[in-house]
Amino acid sequence: MEFDDLLHARRSVHEYSDETIPESTLESIFEAATLAPSGYNLQPWEFLVLRDDERKSTLKEVANGQDHVETADTAVVVLGHTDPMAHAESVFDDWLAKDYLPSEEVREALLGNVEGMSEMPESDRRTWTTRSTALAAMTLMYAARDHGVASCPMEGFGADALTEAFDIPDEYEPVMLITLGYAAEGAADVENERKARRPVEEIVHYGEFDPSEETTLGAADD
Amino acid sequence: MEFDDLLHARRSVHEYSDETIPESTLESIFEAATLAPSGYNLQPWEFLVLRDDERKSTLKEVANGQDHVETADTAVVVLGHTDPMAHAESVFDDWLAKDYLPSEEVREALLGNVEGMSEMPESDRRTWTTRSTALAAMTLMYAARDHGVASCPMEGFGADALTEAFDIPDEYEPVMLITLGYAAEGAADVENERKARRPVEEIVHYGEFDPSEETTLGAADD
Repeated sequence: MEFDDLLHARRSVHEYSDETIPESTLESIFEAATLAPSGYNLQPWEFLVLRDDERKSTLKEVANGQDHVETADTAVVVLGHTDPMAHAESVFDDWLAKDYLPSEEVREALLGNVEGMSEMPESDRRTWTTRSTALAAMTLMYAARDHGVASCPMEGFGADALTEAFDIPDEYEPVMLITLGYAAEGAADVENERKARRPVEEIVHYGEFDPSEETTLGAADD
Repeated sequence: MEFDDLLHARRSVHEYSDETIPESTLESIFEAATLAPSGYNLQPWEFLVLRDDERKSTLKEVANGQDHVETADTAVVVLGHTDPMAHAESVFDDWLAKDYLPSEEVREALLGNVEGMSEMPESDRRTWTTRSTALAAMTLMYAARDHGVASCPMEGFGADALTEAFDIPDEYEPVMLITLGYAAEGAADVENERKARRPVEEIVHYGEFDPSEETTLGAADD
């Protein structure tokens, strides 16, 4: 689909049909997500993909009982590794092989930088992994819609209950949940007028940062 | 452009031509960014847009001297408000007006939820705003490329030096920088083979989370 159409066609959908997403479609969607950029190309993202009723029901329990976690064909737990070093050596080997780096010495220097990032306080490591992982998550949602698959990103869940229920090691940050499925016919989220967005003149500041004290949501929006 | 082409055409570009981005193009790019989803549609994002040499030079100083901050036509400081309540009242008024909420009582209950989120520890508020703001940032980069404008997301900057240099209030998290401009002819980042991505079989886990201990970057990639 043309990106401009995709942009307007993507909505956060809570009502799904019973139709199953073919495995090859899911595969293409995740393949697309890998093409997102990330700091130093470190790609901290991992995706736990839940498709059977029992696991989706467990996820629903830790996600404030939100129904669409269960009714969507697929629920994805989007995770980010909080240690920048996790994949650094392989990533810089690739840079060296492709002439993005002039020498082994520069590779070592970059590794030193990333080692320094590994020693950041926990709060910084959490925002670090959330930043890149969310870029992949957004890519995933556009790719899904491009394949006709609706999505809904969610942040309402108990992180501790989630990591415990699915045996997720401490070094991973649960960044968000995303439900995936074909929209139900007449789904309200598709039919209703889109929720209003803060206008460009409120959020964009040329030259100086002078944020508005008011929120002026457009009356109409697509 | 077709999304699948856009996905492959988007590269993080460090070498830019001297061509100026028309204001109307920038406007369209930011307009697109507003269509990103966000938790409760709270849209914590703000964009400080720097186009003159003096301000870009100041930004370069706090961004580890990275040249492309200055040589790009436009440098964007992507900021996220760390208080979920900042725009909540207007957002829920919009939900009520568009029948996303059945009653004033439900609006009050949602506001109560968001008030609770406002009391999260600082680390949680930082990851909260980074999550939604990065979704808008990714949308911005795809929209830019769709208009022929190359981008480069950057996380290498001193947050304190940045907020001081541009008088950014404490309640905003500097989420990332993005340079925008037309790619220079023959720009290495466009011509070179794309940096390798971790393959789907390494990052996607069906049913159970069982992350790989190894990093297996594909030998070739597009």
